[in-house]
Amino acid sequence: MKKNSLNRIFLYRSCLNRLRLMGVERVFSYTLANETGVTPAQVRKDFSEFNIKGTRKGGYDIDELLEKIEKIFFGNKNHKIILVGMGNMGQALSKYHKFITRNMNIIATFDIDPFKHRHKSDIPVYPMEKLKEIITKHKITVAIITVSEISAQEVADTLIRHGIKGIVNFAPVLLKVPSDIIINNVNLCDELERVIYYVHKQMKVDGLKNLELLYRDMKY
Amino acid sequence: MKKNSLNRIFLYRSCLNRLRLMGVERVFSYTLANETGVTPAQVRKDFSEFNIKGTRKGGYDIDELLEKIEKIFFGNKNHKIILVGMGNMGQALSKYHKFITRNMNIIATFDIDPFKHRHKSDIPVYPMEKLKEIITKHKITVAIITVSEISAQEVADTLIRHGIKGIVNFAPVLLKVPSDIIINNVNLCDELERVIYYVHKQMKVDGLKNLELLYRDMKY
Repeated sequence: MKKNSLNRIFLYRSCLNRLRLMGVERVFSYTLANETGVTPAQVRKDFSEFNIKGTRKGGYDIDELLEKIEKIFFGNKNHKIILVGMGNMGQALSKYHKFITRNMNIIATFDIDPFKHRHKSDIPVYPMEKLKEIITKHKITVAIITVSEISAQEVADTLIRHGIKGIVNFAPVLLKVPSDIIINNVNLCDELERVIYYVHKQMKVDGLKNLELLYRDMKY
Repeated sequence: MKKNSLNRIFLYRSCLNRLRLMGVERVFSYTLANETGVTPAQVRKDFSEFNIKGTRKGGYDIDELLEKIEKIFFGNKNHKIILVGMGNMGQALSKYHKFITRNMNIIATFDIDPFKHRHKSDIPVYPMEKLKEIITKHKITVAIITVSEISAQEVADTLIRHGIKGIVNFAPVLLKVPSDIIINNVNLCDELERVIYYVHKQMKVDGLKNLELLYRDMKY
């Protein structure tokens, strides 16, 4: 599956979840296409790639679709994840219940601060020295990094050395990893700046439009 | 500026930040190209679009580059943001110091829980009824949503009704907004699942490779 089709599957799922929340039970490819901004043919093509079939009359059953999409990812298996860096963001993510409902369980967290090791929580907080032991014991392949940008590269290097194959990095720095390692840099500042940038751009355009109208009004 | 060139600017910036952390002072377009996976010509083209010039001999000054990139976004102005939903994620984001260093200040937060309004923190937590007043008073245009997926659409509708033009949505549901509103749906589950998906895919490929090797060994 290519990167774009994976992105579309995520898009369909988000949309299907919203429709289900609204009490909708069945959906047509053209509805889903309209809601996600792709063509109905693309929706049908993406689904047929995963052996998901609808009927011309009744469309797709939403619960069935969602179930099948889940299977694309994990075959409903449990996924054990670790998280490094128990600052505010690390703590919030370690408690993020949506991960659990999607079968992604953060089973251990790590921090250099000894005070945090004594912190009572559902998920243990270990010192960094325990990384290798936990990764090996639980056969962990995926880790989340929520340390500061200064420590992020070093932490990533250590994780990879101990056998981690995939990293979601929340530190606002582009990490460098070997080509066989999957890295997903999620930069929260970028996500916010992106919106601010486009809002300002649009307001400028609207401002110019208003000026134009004003100018036109002055002419006539 | 098109969506892709904005994405590349983000990429350059993350990369430049990493280089600066490493103590590097100057960078050539081909280094930056190599680190971010684009062509050197593209880097130069993107920069020249923003009147950023390097010299053939010495490349670009990293501090200067970063400063000019900041100006693309805000002209170094302060941006006031609000946040709705003071759960774990909302609290973490409201304390996220990187937003402040990038001139994005969350000046007010909102929650339906009366207990949270009494919570002592640097940033005030208001009841939802105060939304309109705060948005109008501070001329807010951008908001962050960190409520549950069930409430997210309703919160978005309310924000837009009160004048918000851009939203970063962290609730794991695709929000529907009018075409003149900028929406950025950041789905944390998707970001994690994306990595798990590719790690598993790669492990499968590696597994097959090992089988092939085994088969080859058996033949000879």
